[in-house]
Amino acid sequence: MPEQIPQVVVLRLPMYLRALAILSRENQDVVSSRELGARLQVTSAQIRKDLSYFGKFGKQGKGYNVKHLLERLRHILGLDREWAMAIIGMGRLGKALVRYPGFLPQGFRVVAAFDSNPRQIGKKVGGITVQDVTDMESAIARCSVNIAVVAVPAAEAPKVIETLVKCGITAILNYAPVVVQAPNNVQLRDIDPILALQSMTFYLKDAAPVSRSRRGRSRLEK
Amino acid sequence: MPEQIPQVVVLRLPMYLRALAILSRENQDVVSSRELGARLQVTSAQIRKDLSYFGKFGKQGKGYNVKHLLERLRHILGLDREWAMAIIGMGRLGKALVRYPGFLPQGFRVVAAFDSNPRQIGKKVGGITVQDVTDMESAIARCSVNIAVVAVPAAEAPKVIETLVKCGITAILNYAPVVVQAPNNVQLRDIDPILALQSMTFYLKDAAPVSRSRRGRSRLEK
Repeated sequence: MPEQIPQVVVLRLPMYLRALAILSRENQDVVSSRELGARLQVTSAQIRKDLSYFGKFGKQGKGYNVKHLLERLRHILGLDREWAMAIIGMGRLGKALVRYPGFLPQGFRVVAAFDSNPRQIGKKVGGITVQDVTDMESAIARCSVNIAVVAVPAAEAPKVIETLVKCGITAILNYAPVVVQAPNNVQLRDIDPILALQSMTFYLKDAAPVSRSRRGRSRLEK
Repeated sequence: MPEQIPQVVVLRLPMYLRALAILSRENQDVVSSRELGARLQVTSAQIRKDLSYFGKFGKQGKGYNVKHLLERLRHILGLDREWAMAIIGMGRLGKALVRYPGFLPQGFRVVAAFDSNPRQIGKKVGGITVQDVTDMESAIARCSVNIAVVAVPAAEAPKVIETLVKCGITAILNYAPVVVQAPNNVQLRDIDPILALQSMTFYLKDAAPVSRSRRGRSRLEK
């Protein structure tokens, strides 16, 4: 019953998964919530609370079995299968995404690419033939697409996302720098450098630039 | 004293800012925390609590003055000035980022670009001459870079980020799909489609694919 688990918890699970995958590669068998937390800048209490939504993992004071927790989290997140993705918008970013080698090893297969520009339609990008965005509905059904990735300009994004929702897509990764409303049953994630940058300048704004001084100001202020 | 404000709060401010900018463009003068929350899928209590860290905004029952709150948030986030960015890695993604038209209107100016490939060094990308990554330290100081954007392959990212930290950079936007540890005084944000995708499959995993049925399962389960 995913509805009962806070979304913020679900958003954190992939980070836990990644840290566990690294530990597993390093052949570490057991990890404490404290060590896992230190790797992720999260408190150990937060990790224990988040995992408690999904059952009991590990014994008190014994830590977690890395491989077991990794496997369970992969299952919980639905990552023990392959997912089909469509990428909409074949500008520089869209093309880079179609060819991005990081998707497939994680179980995300790009099966379709769309653009509205007649000069792009019919061309091959990374082995995928670019289709006309006006044919999206039938193409998405034909390819059993699970996830749509939106890489169109900001002005076009709301309409594309609206169309995707109409097509029955319930998971959308949006690269366009625009806030779009989606129905509650649709998962919409914004990949947005601006939001990330704006949350860093908060910490930079009183610091000296690199060229003048490398020292932070926090020590002086205390 | 940014240290006393929880980072999760800071991470949410840019979203508030964006929603307010839209309201301002729509010529709305006043907004309630409820309306703002509805636009962002955040509770109104959350919004009031987040804003309370920064002083008093608006009167109870009267809502917020859109323009005033917008201006205050821009100031709080340090967005009433321009920031200089360096982009490291001139593959497809890095080049798209140098040319990304969304940065400058938000006050983020790309002033330097780096790559390790001799065939890229010296070339112009979007008006910026690509420099040798081994010259990064002096170039970053010369250009007074505030923020670094890492667009190198995953295997190279940890070393590049380590170098950036040594150069005195304290704000790093990382596009490489890899978890990197940074010192506490460094703000590191990962732009990572995999993490976002993995947090959506949680909601997809029991749903039928689009081609078979468009109906969700939540109604059946209740």
